[in-house]
Formats: sequence, C-alpha cells, structure tokens
Amino acid sequence: MAEESLFSSELQVANVGLDLFAETLVAQGIEPVRVEWRPPADGMGGELWQTLAAARIAAANERAVRRMLEARPVLVDVRQASEVLPGMSKHTLFHAGPPVTWERMCGPLRGAVIGALLYEELAHTEQEALALVERGEIEFSPCHHHQAVGPMAGVISASMPVYVLENQTHGNRAFSNLNEGLGKVLRYGANDQEVLDRLRWMRDVLGPALSQAIRASGGVDVKQHTAQALQMGDECHNRNRAASSILIRTLAPFLVETSQSPQETASILRFMGGNQHFYLNISMAACKASADAASGEPFSSLVTTMARNGTDFGIRVSGLGDRWYTGQAQQVRGLYFTGFSEADANPDIGDSTISETVGIGAFAMAAAPAIAQFVGGTPADALRYTLDMYDITLAEDGNMAIPSLDFRGAPAGIDVRKVVHLNRPPIINTGIAHRLPGIGQIGAGIVEPPMTCFTQALADLAKAVQPAP
Amino acid sequence: MAEESLFSSELQVANVGLDLFAETLVAQGIEPVRVEWRPPADGMGGELWQTLAAARIAAANERAVRRMLEARPVLVDVRQASEVLPGMSKHTLFHAGPPVTWERMCGPLRGAVIGALLYEELAHTEQEALALVERGEIEFSPCHHHQAVGPMAGVISASMPVYVLENQTHGNRAFSNLNEGLGKVLRYGANDQEVLDRLRWMRDVLGPALSQAIRASGGVDVKQHTAQALQMGDECHNRNRAASSILIRTLAPFLVETSQSPQETASILRFMGGNQHFYLNISMAACKASADAASGEPFSSLVTTMARNGTDFGIRVSGLGDRWYTGQAQQVRGLYFTGFSEADANPDIGDSTISETVGIGAFAMAAAPAIAQFVGGTPADALRYTLDMYDITLAEDGNMAIPSLDFRGAPAGIDVRKVVHLNRPPIINTGIAHRLPGIGQIGAGIVEPPMTCFTQALADLAKAVQPAP
Repeated sequence: MAEESLFSSELQVANVGLDLFAETLVAQGIEPVRVEWRPPADGMGGELWQTLAAARIAAANERAVRRMLEARPVLVDVRQASEVLPGMSKHTLFHAGPPVTWERMCGPLRGAVIGALLYEELAHTEQEALALVERGEIEFSPCHHHQAVGPMAGVISASMPVYVLENQTHGNRAFSNLNEGLGKVLRYGANDQEVLDRLRWMRDVLGPALSQAIRASGGVDVKQHTAQALQMGDECHNRNRAASSILIRTLAPFLVETSQSPQETASILRFMGGNQHFYLNISMAACKASADAASGEPFSSLVTTMARNGTDFGIRVSGLGDRWYTGQAQQVRGLYFTGFSEADANPDIGDSTISETVGIGAFAMAAAPAIAQFVGGTPADALRYTLDMYDITLAEDGNMAIPSLDFRGAPAGIDVRKVVHLNRPPIINTGIAHRLPGIGQIGAGIVEPPMTCFTQALADLAKAVQPAP
Repeated sequence: MAEESLFSSELQVANVGLDLFAETLVAQGIEPVRVEWRPPADGMGGELWQTLAAARIAAANERAVRRMLEARPVLVDVRQASEVLPGMSKHTLFHAGPPVTWERMCGPLRGAVIGALLYEELAHTEQEALALVERGEIEFSPCHHHQAVGPMAGVISASMPVYVLENQTHGNRAFSNLNEGLGKVLRYGANDQEVLDRLRWMRDVLGPALSQAIRASGGVDVKQHTAQALQMGDECHNRNRAASSILIRTLAPFLVETSQSPQETASILRFMGGNQHFYLNISMAACKASADAASGEPFSSLVTTMARNGTDFGIRVSGLGDRWYTGQAQQVRGLYFTGFSEADANPDIGDSTISETVGIGAFAMAAAPAIAQFVGGTPADALRYTLDMYDITLAEDGNMAIPSLDFRGAPAGIDVRKVVHLNRPPIINTGIAHRLPGIGQIGAGIVEPPMTCFTQALADLAKAVQPAP
C-alpha cells in the first residue's frame, strides 16, 4: 500500500520535483556549484534513478511540512533565560541570524551586545564592554542554535526573561525574548539608560507577572491567536495590532487575579497596550517551535530557518542538518521615518523571518492590506506577494485562512527547489535599523534573501540524494 | 462671493441633483405619490425654479453631511437611564425602531418588554407584566425620540445602565444600553432568570465599574476606535471583534486602577473579553450622536435615521423634521445557527441600522471580508456592497478608511433622492431574532429597507422645497 501510493499518486508530484531539480542544476547553469550528477555505478538507468530521487524528496517534504503544520505551540511560561535556555551562561550572548564574529558584526548588533553587557552588569561603561569582548571573554552564539529566536539584533542574555513555548504535538520547546516596544530599544542597538531601565523593569516586574498570568491561564494557544489575528488585518510579523490586543484580552483577567498590586498590573497593561508589536516575539517563538519540528527530515528540501545577523542572511534546510547557507544581507526597500533615508539603514537583520519561514508575515500579507502604510507599497502589492508565494511553497496552511482570498490557507513551507527553479526568492517584510548603534528603528519595508543561499543548499541536497557510488 | 459660488461651482452639483429629483418623481412614475410639481404662480419659469430648488437641496445636504462627518462622539460615562435619558420614568420603556403599539409589537419586542418589567420589579410574573401593559400603565416610546438607540428589541428601562456619549464638535449627547452578549439575552426577547440576573449584574457591577474607568480615562474617542477597527477587519455592526479588543486594551488599566476588588475586575474583563460584540452599543450611540448632529437641516435629503421595531422599518430625513416614513420590516437573508431556519425568523429589528445610516456596518463591509462567515455570502459580496453604496451616498468619510479599497473613505450619508433614482435601497447587515419571545438570536444576514420609506420621504421633500403659491 505504501509502495503503491509512492509509485502512483505520488509520482506525479515526484516528476514535477525532478524537473525542477534537474533543470535548476543543469539548464540554469549556476556557476559556483559543481555537482556530481551521474547514474550510479551499478548500472541503474539515470532516468529511473532521478525519478526515485525526486520521489524521495517529495515524500520527505510531505513528512516535514506536515510536522510544521501540525505543530501546536502553546505559550506556557515566562522564565529567566539562564533557567531554561540550553547553553546559556553568564558570559554567553545569543544573537539573531547565522553565526558571526565580533569583527564582522554590524552596528546595531554591536550596540545590542554592549547594551546587554551593561544590563548584565558585566561592564559598567561602553569601554569596559568593548574590552571584555575584545579579550574574548564573551561567547557569541546564534539564538537559533538554542531553540530560540529574537527580533532584529536578537540579543538574549542570561537574566533576560524569555517566553517558553511548548509544541504540544511533537514535544519540542522554543523561546524568545520579550518585546520592548518601538523607538530606542536594545534590539535596534540602542543601549542608553532608558533602554537598560526598561529591560530591568521587564526582568523584575513584567516577566514575573506574565509568568504568573500565563500559568494561571493554563497556557495560550498561539496558533489560534495568530489565526484570529489573520482575520483581523494582521500578518503577525510587522503588523501585530490585533494579535497584541487579543492577547491582552486573553491575559488581562489572569494578570488581575495573580497580581498583588493594582498599580503594577495597570503599568503592565499600559506597557502591553502601548506596544502594537507586543505579540511579535511570542509569534516568532511559536514559528520557531513549528520550524524545529520540521527539521532533520533526510532529503527534505523544506526551508526550516531564515535569519539575518545584519551582515549575513542565512537559511537552513530540513534535509541538510544544521548547516547554514549564507549570503550578504540585503538593503531593505521601504518607508523611512521622518529625518532618515536609505543611507542611514543597516542591511536586513533579525530572526523575525521565522514568520515567513512557516507561512505568515509577508507570506500572509494579503490578510493585512493596512500594512502598506507601514512597509510601503499598496494593498494590491500585499495581495500579490501572497499569491507569488504559493508558487514556491509546499502547502497551504488551512489554519491560517486569508479572508480576502476566500479563506484560502496561507502559503507555507518554502521549497528550495521551487525558489531556485523560478528564481523567486521568498518575500520578507521587516523593520529597518539604523546602521549605527544606539539609534533604533528608522523605517520598515520589504526585502528578499540573496539567492545564493538557495542555490548552495540545492547543490548540497543534490549530493545528499545521490546514491553512494 | 457666496452668490458667485452658488451659481458657478455649485450649480454643477445642483443640476445633477435636479435631474435625479425630477426624473424620480416624473419619469419613474412612483404610483402612490402625488406631487404638485408646477412652476410657482408668480411666473418664474419652471426650469429656473427647479434649478434653484435642487441647488437649495444640494447646499442643505452639504451642511448636513458635513455636520455628520465632523461630529466627534466621545464616550464619557455610564449612568442609570433614569438619571440621564430625557423622558425616562419608572413606567416608561423605550424600544427600537419607529413608534409601535403593544398590539402591533413582534414576539421578541414583547418578550423584551416583559423581561424589562420583571427586571424593574414592576411585575413578578409574565401574567402580571401582561396585565400591566394591557391596563395601559406602561408608556412605550422609541429610543430614537430620546437621543438613544438600542440593538434588536432595544428596550431600555429606568434602572438600566446606559453609555453617555458627547459629541464634542456640536455638543449633543447620545445614549445606548450595554451589550449583554450572544445567546439568551433581553434584546432578542429572552427574559428568563439567567437574563434578569445578568441585567442586574450589569446594573450593579459592570455599569458602575465602567463609569469609573471611563471617567478616569478622560473619555474614549469612539470614532478613532472605530477607524482603527476598520483597519482590523471590523465593520462595527455585526463584526466588532477588533473594536471590542482595543476597547478592552484602552480601558483595562483604568478598570484595574479604579476597582476595589481584583475578583470583580477580573469578572468584568472576562465578560467584556467573552463578548465579541461588546463594542456595538458604544458604536451605535456614537453613530446616533453623529446622525442627530445632521438632523433638522431644512430641505436636506440626507437620511438621519433608519430603525426597525420588528414590525415596521422607519426612516427619518434631515429636512423633514421628526416624521417617520415607514414600511413593512423585511425578512433577513442569512446564515442560521444549527437547528433554525427562515421559518423561525422574526422580520428585521433594531436600531443598529444607525451604523449604516452614518456609513459603517454593511456600508463598510469591504473592510471586513471575514464577516462573510457570519452573515453569509463571500468576501467579494462584502466588497460589492460597499462599492454599491457609493452611488447612493453624499460623501466619503475619510476618517473611515477601507484598506482593501486603497484606503478610500467609507460611503457615508444616504441621499433619499439617489436611493429612489437608482431604485437601490441601502444595504444592511443584521442579527436575526427568533420570532417567538424568549429564544434569542438564531442567525445573521443581509436585509434591505422597504423602498416605500424613501419614495414617501422624497414626495414630502418635493412638497417642502416647492415655493409657496
């Protein structure tokens, strides 16, 4: 029965996959990639072998993308990073994107590193912080290597509060830091006293209160919240207004019941209510839980990570283990806040592309026409972005229905083969950081990953799927 | 200068108005309407007179619709009806729609009347309540005659809490009762113990708490909330999810700060959070404040009231004083909850059509594609309804931008002349009440007013605008 389905209904899909696969590597002539693409030595015909290889990828993708869609991430707690994040220690800083050395870090990431060291009181001045880093006493590691994600600079240090999400379908956990709001904030590289004071209030007041409320609530079904928000004009990457509001609606009674002080509860409700992006980090952690569930499926061409450190853009692919495929981070095309222009902009940065990786964010922009006022373009562009993404994805996520498309599920699960075949990179919407540390967000817009990430990954996949000689 | 503009730029508009006006009454040959349509006796030519009459209507409409759009209704308090509603007394009940006698009242309105008398302890059994009514001891009066509106049966009695809204542009006030949620509720004619207990909790706990929170907040700018909600997939008649959520976001800190008891505050936040239509009544009162500001402009053909009592549909027109123009309330075309069908449905009922009167609700359905799942049809229908309404309205409300239409303002201000000329009644979305008292909501859908309301009103306007002989 399993074999029968492999060689009947699934071969149709497999052949499509094969065409893409072969065409990419041969017809499109990607220069830096050299692939051994020969029939195996035992004399099995090339065509049959290619058919089987493509069927193998299709079956792997089906398993991987199903795990991604069936993940059910639930927000269960807020804890200090050092208590829950694997690999976190006093002298460790996690950051967004693929691995990067201090020497290659961009301005906002350096600013956030300095801010985190001041916040942790490992240094008391910027000079002390720089000295500490330059003596090699701080270990840097991507959030993504520790089941975590962080927007923009994405710096997480030991005493920061983090959301704890559990994927109730597959059991894996994921984490993210808490959103500080807009303006001068650590994630955009700002690190003055105002920023540090807010981080400490988040550690001492907000985090513990959220922890109590979330536990009292029995956990927040994040996918259900995101699905609701998509019916309410959010795409849950750069538009989180509805999601943040319904999160407040969900948690407010529990915040009230678990708090000792009305003043404290009111200050928390004001902080949450004043931040239209409060939900973003929770959504990102939920996406991370779903993407991680889909990782490690041999031969799958499903993209499970897209992340940027402000210098490099990197992807990881389900069938290719933990290896990063990187290229230069791009400039964002967008709308700038008054007084700023493209000349001030840092290249694309942050782990928030985990949204697009699982099919929300720019992939669901058709659900969020009003976002055009924030990232530029028109509602028609937003619609087109979503429609374009159906061509490079493996599934439609019925849980993430888009009203304006007659409740069609959002395009979910990027297939490296389709991206390369169509030469159509995934679309991403994003905030824009000032290139200098300490300034903050200066705009928002649209960006694409460098294609080289996908062509490199596809070449490795071709090697992986090739039978041993 | 004023004269010059009347006879240059405005005559263009005036002529359009004239064509509609004349064509309607002559070419379309509306049967029951007999209009004296002659040039005045002083020998002024008919054509010139008609031009002047149309110019007069156009100028009046411009003034009236500008007042409607410039109104700025702010929610300032919650008070007991008897304290603030003009004309309210212990033995008075206000109801939705145009005036109606007990004998002609539909099932749900009768059910709500009985419920209100039990709630006020004027009667202790249904029989006592009926006897009281039949002895003529209860005075019935439309909410609309007392600066108020109420959804569905719309019954307001002396001790009910009501929202107090002030139009900060023109100084007038408007009122509405508080929303009870879905299911078995007074406004759908249910009146059992559960309904009465909830009403008493609303009087004793919810109303006073909201009063304190709203006053502490300094007032809630309702139009701004509605405008935000239109960017979030609401149309603020039958979809109020976003609006209710952002209202909670706004009020929660003040509820916490002004409350004595966390348990009470939590129960209030749960009640508000559990009712996706909580915002409706506030929005209705805001619309009422705007519509009332536009009333009483001599010669204006702007519709300032659309309301139904479950038996009759009635409209009022700015230039025609307080007179109601009524026709038979229609059956609603819609989606029924499981176990119910059109045979169970009461005709169209409630004051909530004040939403469409000022340009939200079904007029703004293009902003709310997800509403198709509640009222039937498709997102494309929702878009079409809004586009159709531009043809029968006087203005576009720039404050109420519709994202999917590239932020075009919602169609606002129904012109009786255009409705009749195009034979296109305003579109309305609405809940459906069971025709028997005590059951509640059984569905939601789309309905139109009877055209006779508009043809009658237009005939009277023609008389009003005609010069004295």
